[in-house]
Amino acid sequence: MFISETKVEVRYAETDQMGIVHHSNYVVWFELGRTHLIKEIGFNYAEMEAEGILSPVTDIQVSYKHPATYGEEVIVKTWVERYDGIRVAYGYEVINSKGQICVTGESSHCCVKKDTFRPISIKKQLPEWHEVYEKIKK
Amino acid sequence: MFISETKVEVRYAETDQMGIVHHSNYVVWFELGRTHLIKEIGFNYAEMEAEGILSPVTDIQVSYKHPATYGEEVIVKTWVERYDGIRVAYGYEVINSKGQICVTGESSHCCVKKDTFRPISIKKQLPEWHEVYEKIKK
Amino acid sequence: MFISETKVEVRYAETDQMGIVHHSNYVVWFELGRTHLIKEIGFNYAEMEAEGILSPVTDIQVSYKHPATYGEEVIVKTWVERYDGIRVAYGYEVINSKGQICVTGESSHCCVKKDTFRPISIKKQLPEWHEVYEKIKK
Amino acid sequence: MFISETKVEVRYAETDQMGIVHHSNYVVWFELGRTHLIKEIGFNYAEMEAEGILSPVTDIQVSYKHPATYGEEVIVKTWVERYDGIRVAYGYEVINSKGQICVTGESSHCCVKKDTFRPISIKKQLPEWHEVYEKIKK
Repeated sequence: MFISETKVEVRYAETDQMGIVHHSNYVVWFELGRTHLIKEIGFNYAEMEAEGILSPVTDIQVSYKHPATYGEEVIVKTWVERYDGIRVAYGYEVINSKGQICVTGESSHCCVKKDTFRPISIKKQLPEWHEVYEKIKK
Repeated sequence: MFISETKVEVRYAETDQMGIVHHSNYVVWFELGRTHLIKEIGFNYAEMEAEGILSPVTDIQVSYKHPATYGEEVIVKTWVERYDGIRVAYGYEVINSKGQICVTGESSHCCVKKDTFRPISIKKQLPEWHEVYEKIKK
Repeated sequence: MFISETKVEVRYAETDQMGIVHHSNYVVWFELGRTHLIKEIGFNYAEMEAEGILSPVTDIQVSYKHPATYGEEVIVKTWVERYDGIRVAYGYEVINSKGQICVTGESSHCCVKKDTFRPISIKKQLPEWHEVYEKIKK
Repeated sequence: MFISETKVEVRYAETDQMGIVHHSNYVVWFELGRTHLIKEIGFNYAEMEAEGILSPVTDIQVSYKHPATYGEEVIVKTWVERYDGIRVAYGYEVINSKGQICVTGESSHCCVKKDTFRPISIKKQLPEWHEVYEKIKK
């Protein structure tokens, strides 16, 4: 299993009046982790979109363990939790500088054509991605 | 079971380059639905916080079915899915004007003291909330 | 001068650890006010975009007077501050329920073709918009 | 004049349906640039807040020149544009990898007590900050 690590500096704008990071922001950090994983395995999500293929989220799940706060730097660990040729599920772990797990999570994705939002088979339409995802998945 | 309905007008800033609402925003809409449900059953979350009790999210889950888009008005349906005196889980459904389900979801919460983030028992510390939650839960 | 009024309920996610609305959110509320003004004068920004014309922001200015807080409902007043056939500047005032001015601001916009981001003349390309903007401007 | 440089990777969630970064996000990037400048001159904004002093924004101005897009890395240049012992104005420039100026901007700030939001004199209450700000200002 390949694990990508992304450093994220907590932004002031990401806090809320509880004094901690608002829970919706971890979903944005997951996306950042995903972008990095894709780049590290040799692909580019921006280019895939430019070629007319989108990869929308179909499901997301987050468990909050320990709040992250402004001024901290956290690490988003991202990996391919499941892959079957059509759907990809990424796993995530956000860890603070003390090694505490802030959140764990998972997001599921399919690939669709930009114009129609019709699902496509990653295995058939993106054989190079398929090969690599098979290799790096958990 | 009591179901609260909140109208949400999709904001331009909530869209992304897919041309649809970015998936992190539904988490914010759920929070809006929760605030309304609490108000409709006679309580006020802002006041509870002012009195030193917070209700952080411990888990969140979202399933994306149909994209919402700018210019639309959607309805967030919110209800108490589970309640046991300590934890509350709210259920959500976001529905567009054609009656299509855009997303479904669930969020779990506990109550903690503002100063220490130590969990408290809703049943013991907030007996009035307890009574109502018992009544309206699914 | 025509003034549009938009009610905005302050969202929890819009607060920051100062316990007030994070200053970036007023920029989002201005956009909401703008969308409403355009609708009230009989047009539809979403449709204009669908026809290939965008109206990006070229300048924005905000003065913060009094913080808005979670649980409040504020009103965003929006009007056409200046219009010359090519550029539109909207003026804004955000007012809380006590009548206090929270922020004042202004945003400037041009119109561009979606494909090229090349500026177009509103007067020539959108004569119906031109006529109304001339009428309602300050 | 001291200029701080902060790298910012454009996030997918920061784009809107125009296919470019939504204009409200530059305001968030400015804040990130400010945090870094403060750190680089030897202070820590998070600690200042922990000691009961906040530095809210009183005015903000942004001029949009060239859109930033997902997949890019931009640089936020931040400096002290003006300082008079009570108010600080920071200047900003966001530059893309081709050297194009995406936006320029300015934000003004005062310092207030956390409890009361009453303004304080930086010169008197924070003499160490005062000394450095006098040195590095434009």
